[in-house]
Amino acid sequence: MTQARIAKYQAHTNIALIKYWGKRNQELILPVTSSLSLTLEAFYTQTQVEFSDQFANDQFILNGHPQSHEATTKVSHYVDLFRRTAGVTLPVKITSDNYVPTAAGLASSASAFAALACACNDALDLNLNPHELSIMARQGSGSASRSLFGGFVEWEKGSGEDSNSSFARPFDSADWDIAMIALVLNHQSKKFSSRKAMQHTIETSPFYKLWPEEVAKDLELIKSAIKQKDLKQIGEIAEHNAMKMHATMLAANPSFTYFESDSLKAMELIKNMRHNGLTCYYTMDAGPNVKILCPYSQSQQIKEQLLHYFDESQIIISQVGPAPFALDVSGV
Amino acid sequence: MTQARIAKYQAHTNIALIKYWGKRNQELILPVTSSLSLTLEAFYTQTQVEFSDQFANDQFILNGHPQSHEATTKVSHYVDLFRRTAGVTLPVKITSDNYVPTAAGLASSASAFAALACACNDALDLNLNPHELSIMARQGSGSASRSLFGGFVEWEKGSGEDSNSSFARPFDSADWDIAMIALVLNHQSKKFSSRKAMQHTIETSPFYKLWPEEVAKDLELIKSAIKQKDLKQIGEIAEHNAMKMHATMLAANPSFTYFESDSLKAMELIKNMRHNGLTCYYTMDAGPNVKILCPYSQSQQIKEQLLHYFDESQIIISQVGPAPFALDVSGV
Repeated sequence: MTQARIAKYQAHTNIALIKYWGKRNQELILPVTSSLSLTLEAFYTQTQVEFSDQFANDQFILNGHPQSHEATTKVSHYVDLFRRTAGVTLPVKITSDNYVPTAAGLASSASAFAALACACNDALDLNLNPHELSIMARQGSGSASRSLFGGFVEWEKGSGEDSNSSFARPFDSADWDIAMIALVLNHQSKKFSSRKAMQHTIETSPFYKLWPEEVAKDLELIKSAIKQKDLKQIGEIAEHNAMKMHATMLAANPSFTYFESDSLKAMELIKNMRHNGLTCYYTMDAGPNVKILCPYSQSQQIKEQLLHYFDESQIIISQVGPAPFALDVSGV
Repeated sequence: MTQARIAKYQAHTNIALIKYWGKRNQELILPVTSSLSLTLEAFYTQTQVEFSDQFANDQFILNGHPQSHEATTKVSHYVDLFRRTAGVTLPVKITSDNYVPTAAGLASSASAFAALACACNDALDLNLNPHELSIMARQGSGSASRSLFGGFVEWEKGSGEDSNSSFARPFDSADWDIAMIALVLNHQSKKFSSRKAMQHTIETSPFYKLWPEEVAKDLELIKSAIKQKDLKQIGEIAEHNAMKMHATMLAANPSFTYFESDSLKAMELIKNMRHNGLTCYYTMDAGPNVKILCPYSQSQQIKEQLLHYFDESQIIISQVGPAPFALDVSGV
C-alpha cells in the first residue's frame, strides 16, 4: 500500500550578532562557542519533501533545477537521520526554493536545513519538538539550529561530544523596534566556503585561541543589553564581535579576508551615519555582504543614505522573522 | 665670537618587516617589542641644521615652507636633547626636505629624525656614534632608530625604563637580490596618526596581548631566514606579521582599519602574481600603501603587472638603502 508522506515548510535565515566561528566536532557540527542570532523575515527557504516507494531514487530539486548526483547524495545522507529515526527506507523527493542569495554570506544553508528538518519531521510523523529539531538541523548546518526559532535566538554550545547537549532556544521575541538591512554586495558564490575558512583559522591563526573567551564575554553583555532593549549597546557589541572574528582570519597563515572594496565603503558609510545621529551597526559573515542592525523606524532613512552609493536592488530591509511554519501542499 | 655650526645629512626611510606596534613608555618611546626593518634607497630626508647666535628664534623650514609655531616648538624641544648634551643654548635653523610622501604610511618621520639627529651631532661636535645616535633618533620617532643603519636592521626593545637599552643595530647588509616596491595608494595624510592608532589598539584590542609573543617568534624566524638569504621565507614571515598587526587594529573597540579599496586590490594582485611564480610579498603600515618585498631581478616584471591597475607614478621600485651620510654644505 502506498502512503502519501508529504510536507512543506518555510524557515527563515538568521544573522549571528555573536558569531559561530569554529567547530569542536566536524562530524556532529558541535561548535567551539555558543552564539546568538536574529531571525530575519525577508530571507527564507521553502522546502517540500515527499517520501514514496513510487520513486526509484532520492531526488533533489533546488530553485527549479534537479541537482547533481553529488549534491543529492549529500542531502540523502542528511535525510537518512530522519529515515533511521522513523524506521523507514522510502526514497524522497526534495523540492526546495531559496529566497536568499545563495552562498553570498547570507546563510541560505541555515534556512534550508531548518526547513528540511521541519518537513521531514512532519512527513514522517516523528513529532519532534523545536528543541529536538534544532539538534537535527544543526547536523546539517551549524547555524540552521538557530533558524528553528524567531527573534533573538541563542545556540548553546553544549558539552563534550554529546550531540543532544548543543541546541538553540529562543532568547527574546524581538517584538520591538528592530530591523536588519542586508546590503548585498556580491551575488557570486564565495571565494571559499565558511567551513574551510573556519578550519584554516582554527589551525593557523594565533589569535583564535582568545576567540572563545571573547565570545563568552560578548554573549553575556549582549544578553543583558537585549533584556534592556538597548539597541545601541546591542549594536556596539555585535559590531565588535564580528570584527574580532574577521581579525582572526586576517591573522591566519596565510592571511585572508572576506572584505571587499564595497564592504569597506559600506562600513565607512555606516560609521558616518552613526556620527550623524542614526542608530546603525554593521556585522559581516563569511562573505563580502554587510548587514546593518538598526531600529525599523530608521530603516528607510538609512536606506536613502545607502542609495547614494548602492543600487536599490542591493538594499533589502528585513523585519524580525518568525519560527518555521507549515505550508499548504494541497496544490501539489 | 660667532661660530659656524652647520651640518647637513641624508637619512633613508625603512620599512619594518617585523613591525613596531606599541610603546611601553610614551615619553622615551620605548617599544613593547623589538622589530626588524629594511632600509630603502629611494626614500630619504635631507636635513641641514645651523646653530647660531645670530638667530632670534629656532626656525623650521620643511619642504621649503616655514612651519607653524606649534610644529617648530615640537622640533625645538627635540633639538634640546642635543643642545643640553653639548652644553649650548644657541638657536637653530632647520631646513629639511622629505623625498618621501609625508604621512602616507611611508614613515617620513623615520628618515627625518635620523637625518636631524646626525646633523645635530655633527654641527655640535658631539661625536656620538651610530649606536648612540640611534638612541637619540628613537626619542624623536621610534622607527627613526632603525634609519641609522643600512640593509636589514634590528631595533632592540631593551629593558625597563632604561633609554640606553633600546637601540637599533645592523643585522645584515642585504647586499643580495632584494628590492622593495612602494605602491603609493593615497597621497593624502593619514586618517589617524600611528601614535593614536597604536595606543587605541593597546588599550582596547583583546588580541594585542598576544602580539609580543608573536613578534618574538617571527623575529627569530626571520633572522634565521635572512641568514639563509631565503627571500620566500622572509616574505612569508613578514606578510603574516603585518597582517597580524592589522588584525589587532580590526579587533580594537571601536574597530578600525587602514585598508582601503586599492590596498585590497593590491594584496590580491600580489597573491595572484605569486601564484604565477613570481616571488613577491606584501606588508602594510599605518596607512593604505602597500609595500612589496621581492628580488630586485623581478621588480620590473612585477611593476609591469601592477601597471595594469595602477599608474606609473604610484609604483616606486627601491633598492636597499644605506646608512645616513653627510652632505656638502659649501653651497649654503
